[in-house]
Amino acid sequence: MSLRGWPRDRDDTPVTSYFAAQAQLPEGLTANVRLAIDEGRFTGIASEAQPHRDDRLLPGIVLPGFANTHSHAFHRALRGRTHDSRTHDSRTRETGGTFWTWRDAMYLLASRLTPDNYHRLATAVFAEMVLAGVTSVGEFHYVHHQPDGTPYPDPNAMGAALISAARAAGLRITLLDTCYLSGGLTNGRNLLLTPAQQRFGDGDAAGWARRVAALHDGPGVRIGAAIHSVRAVPADQLATIVAAAAGRPLHVHLSEQPAENEQCLAAYGVTPTMLLDRCGALTPLTTAVHGTHLTSADIALLARSGSAVSFCPTTERDLADGIGPAGALADAGVPLTLGTDQNAVIDLFEEARAVELHERLSTGRRGRFSPADLAVMLTAHSTLGWPDAGRIEVGARADLVEVDQCSVRTAGADPGQLVFAASAADIRTVVIDGEQVVTKGRHRLGDIGAMLAGAITEVTE
Amino acid sequence: MSLRGWPRDRDDTPVTSYFAAQAQLPEGLTANVRLAIDEGRFTGIASEAQPHRDDRLLPGIVLPGFANTHSHAFHRALRGRTHDSRTHDSRTRETGGTFWTWRDAMYLLASRLTPDNYHRLATAVFAEMVLAGVTSVGEFHYVHHQPDGTPYPDPNAMGAALISAARAAGLRITLLDTCYLSGGLTNGRNLLLTPAQQRFGDGDAAGWARRVAALHDGPGVRIGAAIHSVRAVPADQLATIVAAAAGRPLHVHLSEQPAENEQCLAAYGVTPTMLLDRCGALTPLTTAVHGTHLTSADIALLARSGSAVSFCPTTERDLADGIGPAGALADAGVPLTLGTDQNAVIDLFEEARAVELHERLSTGRRGRFSPADLAVMLTAHSTLGWPDAGRIEVGARADLVEVDQCSVRTAGADPGQLVFAASAADIRTVVIDGEQVVTKGRHRLGDIGAMLAGAITEVTE
Repeated sequence: MSLRGWPRDRDDTPVTSYFAAQAQLPEGLTANVRLAIDEGRFTGIASEAQPHRDDRLLPGIVLPGFANTHSHAFHRALRGRTHDSRTHDSRTRETGGTFWTWRDAMYLLASRLTPDNYHRLATAVFAEMVLAGVTSVGEFHYVHHQPDGTPYPDPNAMGAALISAARAAGLRITLLDTCYLSGGLTNGRNLLLTPAQQRFGDGDAAGWARRVAALHDGPGVRIGAAIHSVRAVPADQLATIVAAAAGRPLHVHLSEQPAENEQCLAAYGVTPTMLLDRCGALTPLTTAVHGTHLTSADIALLARSGSAVSFCPTTERDLADGIGPAGALADAGVPLTLGTDQNAVIDLFEEARAVELHERLSTGRRGRFSPADLAVMLTAHSTLGWPDAGRIEVGARADLVEVDQCSVRTAGADPGQLVFAASAADIRTVVIDGEQVVTKGRHRLGDIGAMLAGAITEVTE
Repeated sequence: MSLRGWPRDRDDTPVTSYFAAQAQLPEGLTANVRLAIDEGRFTGIASEAQPHRDDRLLPGIVLPGFANTHSHAFHRALRGRTHDSRTHDSRTRETGGTFWTWRDAMYLLASRLTPDNYHRLATAVFAEMVLAGVTSVGEFHYVHHQPDGTPYPDPNAMGAALISAARAAGLRITLLDTCYLSGGLTNGRNLLLTPAQQRFGDGDAAGWARRVAALHDGPGVRIGAAIHSVRAVPADQLATIVAAAAGRPLHVHLSEQPAENEQCLAAYGVTPTMLLDRCGALTPLTTAVHGTHLTSADIALLARSGSAVSFCPTTERDLADGIGPAGALADAGVPLTLGTDQNAVIDLFEEARAVELHERLSTGRRGRFSPADLAVMLTAHSTLGWPDAGRIEVGARADLVEVDQCSVRTAGADPGQLVFAASAADIRTVVIDGEQVVTKGRHRLGDIGAMLAGAITEVTE
């Protein structure tokens, strides 16, 4: 029996203990593990252990909590609503549409959000994430103001609603408060915000920074920053954002679509990655989201800067973005992370295996990313400002995800290859910062499906 | 209220009736539908109805049963077991492997099957399919004989085990008994079967036809035929198979890998599709499986012949086959169907949406296949010899799949776009030929996960 840091019982603070049949510890999948949790952190881990009388038993496979590094919570309300054959692209006169027609539907939805209804919607969406094993979310938030662009009495009312929603759902949140200033790049010029985009804008980067300065970290809450994209932020504003974000996670949508690259090259003569690099926006605290259409020079720049890339494969296939260069990025040493982005799917197992499966589709080979590689992607909490999460070890934040190893999906799979068999529906227990939020597959807030249905009706009908 | 063929109650045969909140009828999604079932068929359908006292209530969305047109049941035992980073391809000296290294693992598993253990395994796998809404399966069956190639006392013992397993699971089966004669095509010649392949072989097509002639259709059972591939059946044997299969479904693996095309061109000077066509193997009763690497001439031949193509997208991405030309095939008028193939995933919603999502990845556009198009693919029972299944209409086989419309996955989705939101885990009720096999998400055989785990242990340890 191996014992590390097992706490003595104290009279004043009850220690919670779990007994896991199998747990993914840093040294590997380990049988019969006792876990002590005190004040939200692991205080003792014993392998080859026997269960004690008061231990909560976890008969499945226990994994560290997952990091969802890219989410737009409100997009969840578009799930199963943008695939209609009547969708029509006025630009190309074809049915079916593109990323850009999808975006029109998303803007209509964004126009209906209020701090109240967004709080209800996001609470349900974040609870769905917790049911899927997510313990930290990076919420890329850009719906800041009233529909006409006027600030709310609290200029951070929407961001505060998101923070409150995440905490109600039991989820840690990094609010990636997003600077969004321009309606796009055309013919080398930054366009004004369209009417639908007015509520995203803060005038300029300095205005954005002043507003964000009023937001503060708290228990389970980090304030981070985001550049929406080089489409939505003029180059001369980037340095202000970088300076204001110093020391915090900084995320940015990057080269999701070829059109962004073309527009950036036309306006600035460089790729989006090169532009960001030139303005100091690529650092080890940066996460570039998507990175679907990168040159090899872009990949080298990302690697040299120490930036990470967030892949969102279920979104990238849904929005017809294409298959990003996951293998080439990993070869260059760029850390990859995972995001659910538009939340058309909330299943981190599916996101993780899709990185490998898309790579298989594009290369004709299997196994560029092993299950262990995918496990690293699943636990990239540090890119959200939580370096002390994502590992089951003494001192780390006490996050646990227990997966049923005998469902119709998982039965027979090698526990070490679970990511290729399991779905979010197989998750039975979720503990976040020591709090058990999901028990027997049920969130402590109750019927999350019904909450989602009600909240989505509010914003779509 | 619309009433069609509602049966009068008779004393001798109790009529089962269901009341569906929403049902996918041929004319579209319809509210408040009463369904009468007698002797395994729909005998009455009433829309705008009121529930009667004895109706079984289906509060979700009721769809026709799904057809799984391509399965190898035993491959289910490889789920979550072929992704190890230690997998090594001796051909290329690389880790990770290819389709061909995966095949080595599959052959090892095949060597361990017996009629008894395969019956237990297949019963559990077919039950998993039923839980996923499958009401007909096309089982592409090639493990016929003892490991050294000697026939069992009953030469169809393995096929009989599969038929019995399907019926125990409540599933209709089309046994696509497969002719497999050669170990491959190299340098223009047919190779002998390897030791691992001995049990697949019947000597020649005439031997295969004699064995298969002893199998008979029965309730819920159709006997069909399959040509394994142009790799495994020499060209001079094809006509015998075609003649023996006359009037029955005939399936064939086609151009799953570029290597098959190269080998066929080297041996015969034509593509696999052209070779099959030349030998009369492409007819309206033919289904070509995969069709991943086709020329435009191949696509035109398939269209002209009236053959269908079975796409198996979750397998095609798992095995690094590539993205098949779904859009081009559909443009040419080739009917597309769906198969779970290696059963690494058993979720027909996932297969269906993956056809569209892979098309989006390869074309950069959304919406080549509408939800209605995908619904047609999901119900291709006629390609398995069941033309009277797959529609909720009077006279058709009484198959029903009820999907929870308020799970965390489906909540908020347009019922007409459910295929983009739902998973197999959302299926609550499955009725096959009038028998209710799944109730509240539970199969009548009990804990299918435990059955799978036990059966897989038997064949892998």
